[in-house]
Amino acid sequence: MVFCKPRLFRNLFLSVMINAMENNDLLANKRHTLAHLLAAAVLELYPDTKNTIGPAIDNGFYYDFEFSSPLSENDLVKIEAKMREILPSWSQFKHREVADKEAKVVYTNNPYKLELIEEISAKGEPITLYTVGGPAEHQSGVSGARFTDLCRGGHSEAPNTDIDPAGFKLDRLAGAYWRGDSNNSMLTRIYGLAFDNQEELEDYIAKREEAEKRDHKKLGKELGLFIFSDLVGSGLPLWTVKGTLMRELLNDYVWELRQAKGFNRVTIPHITKKDLYETSGHWAKFADELFRINTREGHEFAMKPMNCPHHTQIFDAEQRSYRDMPQRYSETTMVYRDEQSGELSGLSRVRSITQDDAHVFCRENQIENEMNAIWDIIDTFYKTFGFELKVRFSRHDPATFDKYLGTPEIWQKAEEKLKSVITDRYDDKFIDGLGEAAMYGPKIDFMAKDALGRTLQVATIQLDFNMPERFKLTCINEKGEKEPIVMIHCAIMGSIERFMSTLIEHYAGAFPTWLSPVQVAIVPVAEAHDEYAKNVARQLKEAGIRIEFLESGDSLGKRIRTMKTSKVPYFIVIGDKEKDSGNITIENRTGEKEELSTEQLIGKLQTEIKNRS
Amino acid sequence: MVFCKPRLFRNLFLSVMINAMENNDLLANKRHTLAHLLAAAVLELYPDTKNTIGPAIDNGFYYDFEFSSPLSENDLVKIEAKMREILPSWSQFKHREVADKEAKVVYTNNPYKLELIEEISAKGEPITLYTVGGPAEHQSGVSGARFTDLCRGGHSEAPNTDIDPAGFKLDRLAGAYWRGDSNNSMLTRIYGLAFDNQEELEDYIAKREEAEKRDHKKLGKELGLFIFSDLVGSGLPLWTVKGTLMRELLNDYVWELRQAKGFNRVTIPHITKKDLYETSGHWAKFADELFRINTREGHEFAMKPMNCPHHTQIFDAEQRSYRDMPQRYSETTMVYRDEQSGELSGLSRVRSITQDDAHVFCRENQIENEMNAIWDIIDTFYKTFGFELKVRFSRHDPATFDKYLGTPEIWQKAEEKLKSVITDRYDDKFIDGLGEAAMYGPKIDFMAKDALGRTLQVATIQLDFNMPERFKLTCINEKGEKEPIVMIHCAIMGSIERFMSTLIEHYAGAFPTWLSPVQVAIVPVAEAHDEYAKNVARQLKEAGIRIEFLESGDSLGKRIRTMKTSKVPYFIVIGDKEKDSGNITIENRTGEKEELSTEQLIGKLQTEIKNRS
Repeated sequence: MVFCKPRLFRNLFLSVMINAMENNDLLANKRHTLAHLLAAAVLELYPDTKNTIGPAIDNGFYYDFEFSSPLSENDLVKIEAKMREILPSWSQFKHREVADKEAKVVYTNNPYKLELIEEISAKGEPITLYTVGGPAEHQSGVSGARFTDLCRGGHSEAPNTDIDPAGFKLDRLAGAYWRGDSNNSMLTRIYGLAFDNQEELEDYIAKREEAEKRDHKKLGKELGLFIFSDLVGSGLPLWTVKGTLMRELLNDYVWELRQAKGFNRVTIPHITKKDLYETSGHWAKFADELFRINTREGHEFAMKPMNCPHHTQIFDAEQRSYRDMPQRYSETTMVYRDEQSGELSGLSRVRSITQDDAHVFCRENQIENEMNAIWDIIDTFYKTFGFELKVRFSRHDPATFDKYLGTPEIWQKAEEKLKSVITDRYDDKFIDGLGEAAMYGPKIDFMAKDALGRTLQVATIQLDFNMPERFKLTCINEKGEKEPIVMIHCAIMGSIERFMSTLIEHYAGAFPTWLSPVQVAIVPVAEAHDEYAKNVARQLKEAGIRIEFLESGDSLGKRIRTMKTSKVPYFIVIGDKEKDSGNITIENRTGEKEELSTEQLIGKLQTEIKNRS
Repeated sequence: MVFCKPRLFRNLFLSVMINAMENNDLLANKRHTLAHLLAAAVLELYPDTKNTIGPAIDNGFYYDFEFSSPLSENDLVKIEAKMREILPSWSQFKHREVADKEAKVVYTNNPYKLELIEEISAKGEPITLYTVGGPAEHQSGVSGARFTDLCRGGHSEAPNTDIDPAGFKLDRLAGAYWRGDSNNSMLTRIYGLAFDNQEELEDYIAKREEAEKRDHKKLGKELGLFIFSDLVGSGLPLWTVKGTLMRELLNDYVWELRQAKGFNRVTIPHITKKDLYETSGHWAKFADELFRINTREGHEFAMKPMNCPHHTQIFDAEQRSYRDMPQRYSETTMVYRDEQSGELSGLSRVRSITQDDAHVFCRENQIENEMNAIWDIIDTFYKTFGFELKVRFSRHDPATFDKYLGTPEIWQKAEEKLKSVITDRYDDKFIDGLGEAAMYGPKIDFMAKDALGRTLQVATIQLDFNMPERFKLTCINEKGEKEPIVMIHCAIMGSIERFMSTLIEHYAGAFPTWLSPVQVAIVPVAEAHDEYAKNVARQLKEAGIRIEFLESGDSLGKRIRTMKTSKVPYFIVIGDKEKDSGNITIENRTGEKEELSTEQLIGKLQTEIKNRS
């Protein structure tokens, strides 16, 4: 089974921040401090506002307020200016533990804070008030009263020197229910962006703008790759002719690489009796996400959320001998997960997930070879797209052992084996993924860095001693004995839906020639050139090149614009000159032109396609 | 949508009889008469037996009895002899209508007949007794009392001259519940085979024996093409490496033919909200067979039992222009139907059905061209397998109009259009399929005759004005107006599962070279020849030929036997002679041998594969 749910990366954009988050907590402290500063500025400008809570988040901070009159986006400029005005006076946070009575006096008019105080007090936890700034410390007469907030701590040591005033910016307003509950009153949330300095802030804003332009939901629609239908339902993409073509090209490529490593395809149905998942252990551990079916005869079935249990049945259909090992089963097939509507997002999180899944059934002494063969495929595949790969050793968390199948001994054995494969090939540069293992075994997860510098989880290789044990999978060894075997789960793209969303954003829709649904657009200048242009089109088509012909009905300008927004790698305008010379001028997306004979053109394109460049 | 449920052809074997059934009712009358004759013989031999009912069936007749002591298969010889003894005395059936009282007197000791009499009487229908034979008519002293049975009629006019005594044969015994209800008592059913003459009877028996040898369930297992798993459930085949390879080869072939006719692939999920099927009309008309899913958020989903409603959503994702027409969507995908366990049979009737489905969305004036293009594909495809095709015009039955969608006017228009396509291409030799239309429109069904002379329903082309209307599908025509469009549903193989079962039985598992999972088996005589043989194997593999290498561990004889049962098209034994000469002797399945160089061998095989022969 291949998990393709990006737990850490709920949306692609958030993942920009992964590296920053890994690097330090100091930035988080600055962001938290800025939340206080935002509250201080708001209270100074709008004294009858009720402040509630305000944490640090991935790209900055927010704070939720109850304003006495509505705020507009324009007010953010004023608030931001006030924050910068106050900041120099914030030299140090001081805190003191207080009795709940005293705390309640401070917040007499703030029911939100009173509710929090009650709660902390009920749990018997200490109530702490953090105070900073104000004229008592700074005699220079700067703006900013002393500001106190109910808080657990985690601030910059010296805000006025630690925080770069050019490194933050108020971002936007949003509505938010008090404590996220729609039964509570609606508050106003102010979001701020915050980084160590102006350069990093501007870099982030630029990347976010670029990411918005590249958003696969927007581009997917513009390029006509996939659709959602209200009648079919959310999280269930339908793939158009162009989108399907791309999926097939990607899948063919994976299959070509796999075939060279001795993989074979198998085919399974999308449903099963619950018995299969009771044996595999998924019925209990995957229960919420299973689409369940009750048949007319009263049997309980489920749609498969993964393929491994089905594949064990094919392996187990006959007693295998050591001569038959390894068995390498590959299958690109859809799995289904009953995701909640609120969690669905474009192609990044769907209910129908196409996995390019594979399972190797092998002997223990074949593990290294098989894993390295798969790793070779992954290297070749991702290099094609210019992705740089990092490796994460995803192991189990002994603290939550009940999430996993099997015994500690099996886990230790599997993790040692896997770690030695990683170390042999990759040295010790791997990321340690404590608690990132699959239910049945540890994984090597591959993290790709895309054109925007975002880190995305992509391919995976997983080692599994548990599933073979549960299904009692064996081969007859050289001594004629039944020998337990192991399973390696592996996916190259993972989920084709998620991989497509990654590619769309990585290339901003301008796919390489081999992957472009249309490779060459042919535009006759006027009706007089239609016939000649059609002849060129026919020749390209016969040479296996995917062309689009823009007939001379619409104006030339309009047709050229259409073509440019469709991000076709090459286009050819055919007019008198081309007709007379017999040569063709081909223009690429960056405007570079080249004059070629039709034969040369075909040769050039075929080479590009063959090399997947 | 392509219906792939063989309504008339629940199992392949039954379909042998289709032609006979179509030709005449006289045979059915003979068979019904023989059921009476069987009862007469049984009652004469076992006077305390209670006879119940006995109809004509596809290949003969049966009669259900309650015997006072168990019968064995050996007793059938005696009963059959008695039937032949009585037959000459049966010159004519006479019948009379009687009051229920009188009928009850005849069957005082037979609770089964009494139950039937009660029922007929309760419905107010006439009770008729049919009498035949016996000494009263024949003074010659032959065996056979006058025999009377409660019956509705439908007998041979003159049994003793119409029925060839060598044309029938008692077949087997079976248990059968009275009226098919497991709460009732278990009766003994005697089956008989019956045809017009001895030759036809023997022909049928020979074909049945051959069909049993070719049974795809038996051969599929022997050849390792597919399996069923108790954990996954019945009706849900899992395809092994070899089976999947064959499926892919077949599917690639269909796709190659379709691509040449301008088809494109699309991709849809296997589930949908019920809304889609409420619009299409399937929710009501297909309800029983839908696998239904209730999601964790309480929504109602269904697994798709067909693909057309999903495909309409891709067409409808943008407003099409006349320039975009036709749109030809093709997709090989699994559909799911909640079949009852008792109806499942090998690959002929499954719950997970892979359809090589396609839908053409076109304008009315494009119907002929599109249909003929599909018909071309069907002709080419089936010719490859040596299938002779017959055409059935499957139209709606006005008597059961509530089974269909749409108005009588739409049906008339669609059927006229379809009939004219058939007549233009096929003359008037088509079979008239009254009541065989799909829910939404009439069909051209193609019937293939296999190696055993059995007629099987295979490909289909269907014309549909209804679905486009329900989904309001249009294109903008030359005048800038919205023009309603039509859909053509078509499948070449229909269900890959059913088509595979057909092919396995058609070829008795000895597939042509292009389709064989293993094309050449290579057998080194002894260990000394392994290396040389492996070198040959490598060359063939590199040339794209699928080989199996039978290492010299087992005895030569055993390896040759293994290979012959696996029905590999060619095998090569490599010993001293081959090693010395550098030539190879290749042997086919019929034992023909040919000596060739490795290059010649590769050339020969590649040509055969390329030509799909």
